Amino acid sequence: MSKGIKHLVSISDLTTPEFTSLVNRAAHHKKIFKSGQPVSSEISDALKGKLVAMLFSKRSTRTRISTEGAAVYFGGHPMFLGKDDIQLGVNESFYDTTRIVSSMTSCIFARVNSHSEIQQLCEHSSVPIINSLCDTYHPLQAICDILTIKEAFGETKGLKLAWVGDANNVINDLAIAALRSGIHVSVAVPRGIEMNPTIVDVAKTVSQETGASFEVTNDPKSACTDANIIVTDTFVSMGEEAQKQIKLQQFSGFQVNSELTKLAAPNWKFMHCLPRHQEEVTDEVFYSNNSIVFEEGENRLYAAMAAIEAFVIKKELA
Amino acid sequence: MSKGIKHLVSISDLTTPEFTSLVNRAAHHKKIFKSGQPVSSEISDALKGKLVAMLFSKRSTRTRISTEGAAVYFGGHPMFLGKDDIQLGVNESFYDTTRIVSSMTSCIFARVNSHSEIQQLCEHSSVPIINSLCDTYHPLQAICDILTIKEAFGETKGLKLAWVGDANNVINDLAIAALRSGIHVSVAVPRGIEMNPTIVDVAKTVSQETGASFEVTNDPKSACTDANIIVTDTFVSMGEEAQKQIKLQQFSGFQVNSELTKLAAPNWKFMHCLPRHQEEVTDEVFYSNNSIVFEEGENRLYAAMAAIEAFVIKKELA
Amino acid sequence: MSKGIKHLVSISDLTTPEFTSLVNRAAHHKKIFKSGQPVSSEISDALKGKLVAMLFSKRSTRTRISTEGAAVYFGGHPMFLGKDDIQLGVNESFYDTTRIVSSMTSCIFARVNSHSEIQQLCEHSSVPIINSLCDTYHPLQAICDILTIKEAFGETKGLKLAWVGDANNVINDLAIAALRSGIHVSVAVPRGIEMNPTIVDVAKTVSQETGASFEVTNDPKSACTDANIIVTDTFVSMGEEAQKQIKLQQFSGFQVNSELTKLAAPNWKFMHCLPRHQEEVTDEVFYSNNSIVFEEGENRLYAAMAAIEAFVIKKELA
Repeated sequence: MSKGIKHLVSISDLTTPEFTSLVNRAAHHKKIFKSGQPVSSEISDALKGKLVAMLFSKRSTRTRISTEGAAVYFGGHPMFLGKDDIQLGVNESFYDTTRIVSSMTSCIFARVNSHSEIQQLCEHSSVPIINSLCDTYHPLQAICDILTIKEAFGETKGLKLAWVGDANNVINDLAIAALRSGIHVSVAVPRGIEMNPTIVDVAKTVSQETGASFEVTNDPKSACTDANIIVTDTFVSMGEEAQKQIKLQQFSGFQVNSELTKLAAPNWKFMHCLPRHQEEVTDEVFYSNNSIVFEEGENRLYAAMAAIEAFVIKKELA
Repeated sequence: MSKGIKHLVSISDLTTPEFTSLVNRAAHHKKIFKSGQPVSSEISDALKGKLVAMLFSKRSTRTRISTEGAAVYFGGHPMFLGKDDIQLGVNESFYDTTRIVSSMTSCIFARVNSHSEIQQLCEHSSVPIINSLCDTYHPLQAICDILTIKEAFGETKGLKLAWVGDANNVINDLAIAALRSGIHVSVAVPRGIEMNPTIVDVAKTVSQETGASFEVTNDPKSACTDANIIVTDTFVSMGEEAQKQIKLQQFSGFQVNSELTKLAAPNWKFMHCLPRHQEEVTDEVFYSNNSIVFEEGENRLYAAMAAIEAFVIKKELA
Repeated sequence: MSKGIKHLVSISDLTTPEFTSLVNRAAHHKKIFKSGQPVSSEISDALKGKLVAMLFSKRSTRTRISTEGAAVYFGGHPMFLGKDDIQLGVNESFYDTTRIVSSMTSCIFARVNSHSEIQQLCEHSSVPIINSLCDTYHPLQAICDILTIKEAFGETKGLKLAWVGDANNVINDLAIAALRSGIHVSVAVPRGIEMNPTIVDVAKTVSQETGASFEVTNDPKSACTDANIIVTDTFVSMGEEAQKQIKLQQFSGFQVNSELTKLAAPNWKFMHCLPRHQEEVTDEVFYSNNSIVFEEGENRLYAAMAAIEAFVIKKELA
């Protein structure tokens, strides 16, 4: 990480110990939160009297609730600013808005459209920016997912994760996160869809560092064979609704169903960052006993806690 | 109430002692809140660090403010999710959303359209659901109304309440609440409008239990004769605006005015859950000294406090 | 100020000591807030368990964030009600809504359209109203601006402030605030635009009281000559977009640029309440080292703190 203010932009920016520490702290705060015991004032007053700004240009259930919950856990006040409240770059320059918002708040959770918006926020903000989803990265989901895998399997090293779906923001960060956790990663995307070359480069480097293998394929069956974890996501992202029919055709054969899961390891688990649609996974798999999607959804809360603790309160990473 | 998580769906689900206890606790918290004294940490930290989700598919002034105020009184953080923030059953299944929202929050105040939505929430939620208005019930209003009547008359037993208006969600719960409080209930609805038969059945049972009489009539004058409390509500509910002219014709003769109030007991009071429109009550009555509508409005705050205390904090009823 | 509840409507309503005290308290709370030290419970619990209502019929970045931040600093819960949440006077009478909202909250920050709405709120509310912008006044901006000037110059007495722009709500309060602070005020407005005569009358009275001069001119150059502070604002206010071309023509020659600033005193500073548009000020001036617009923007937070302390918590002015 560069000196000065530390922002959470992408898992790619973190070292393996930094990332692992975030997952461990998420587990730590989950234990405290779910104990039902009163929380120490060190936690509950950490952001007392402070605003946690949420600049969300896209609607979001999980990201919104988990961010608000994490801010409140640390005693802060989440301030949700949707697209009807503030429009970055419309009524005043992006720079001006960022200067002002950051001058009155403790941090900014930003759920934006393009990655360049996150970059601009990081450049101009006087407080930490937490990337809460852009078109290239989704780091909070990756922290959450590795926590969920650790809970399900105990140990992450040597597991195999199969991604069956689009080469999107979720897998971009999840691939790096998994490799940093010693998990072999096999990404199956349809022909004609390429993974971001930057991510592929980082993945190869991390793969060498941790010994976990990384491959991109066009064959879902090959990816799922002996996989411990099968993950997918929507085939039609927000904003792509117009191309829905074309995309669905392109993803023919990529629906996660019992044909695919029967190739997996006996202890396979299914994950999905939600919201889920029928086309990418059957009910049989999604609501099966092997599905850990609701545990995964809840874990978004603890991922947000870990991010606030590291980037906003302590302002240092492991 | 069934075992497991207790939800507040309808006054019909409560025993007389359970309902009476909610009214008494509302009065208790009103006294504390209005004393201006610092509140004990047992109250002010009860929901510290926790989210109180508000799933509101309809706009609402009183329900929104009273819920936020009650959550904050107990140290919780109200998180308002309107129809632009979350659409139950649209972008993902009702079940999935309920699982996720309930996994990160302390309770869900739900202001929905159909009663079946409340039922689905109760079925799938891992935290208490507080029905904050559906098309069939409005229990928080009923708690509030009995508190307001107690404040105005001291004793509720033997009073007569006249409802002049639609056979809607408000009277459904208010009728049961009044009968449980020993108040005789006379419901005047236009010909062609029938009270919900389930409510009529419950009302008859409760009437036998408490000795308070219950009748449904089409004659507002008969209902108002000797009444201590006259209550009405909008004739045109949210979503029915298209049929406004037809409904107004149907309710001809149902406007609460001095012709009706002069039939009432000398100490009559007028109530209305607000917002109020001209057609159902004249200014003369609405702004008279006999009107207790603003006391009633404020009492929504204390009804919400009682509901949070019983269903979310203590998780047990009297 | 009249007896009973004190509202913050306009700087015109305040005595010089009352206004000065608000500026000093804003500076005081800024020092505490920025110290990074824990805040005393006298401050952080002052509004514990209480709602701070925000009735905002217009979108606003600075006003919203500063109000939320100030409410949270004092331990209160800001409740934002935008035009989609509540529509004053639409679904129920203005009077009814005001009675209800004020019965459940500690105060109401109101950002409305016409000044008459503020007046109605003040008339009917049982809690303090803080005018957060109406078409005639903007008192929080004036408190903020004098704080910003004090920080930049140390002493305010004897400075010269030039306003170059519309005769709007911002200058209405800023002129009085500056005169009360001993600052000479020269207001340059285009021909055909007149300052509000009530403001001119108050300005003349205050001018006599404090010895600071006041003039209205149509010549920006004359106003800026030897000015220490040059201030402008948008030429096209919210709601006036249709007349944009006509207004821009009318304001020809009023853009603050280096032609104007070279006439100013050597230590000149540029101010703007934001959001800023190109037409009223060049980038060269707006982003120059002489510009203190971002300090000014941040100071809105401390102005809101001072207002809450005086009008809501202590309920008394100096």
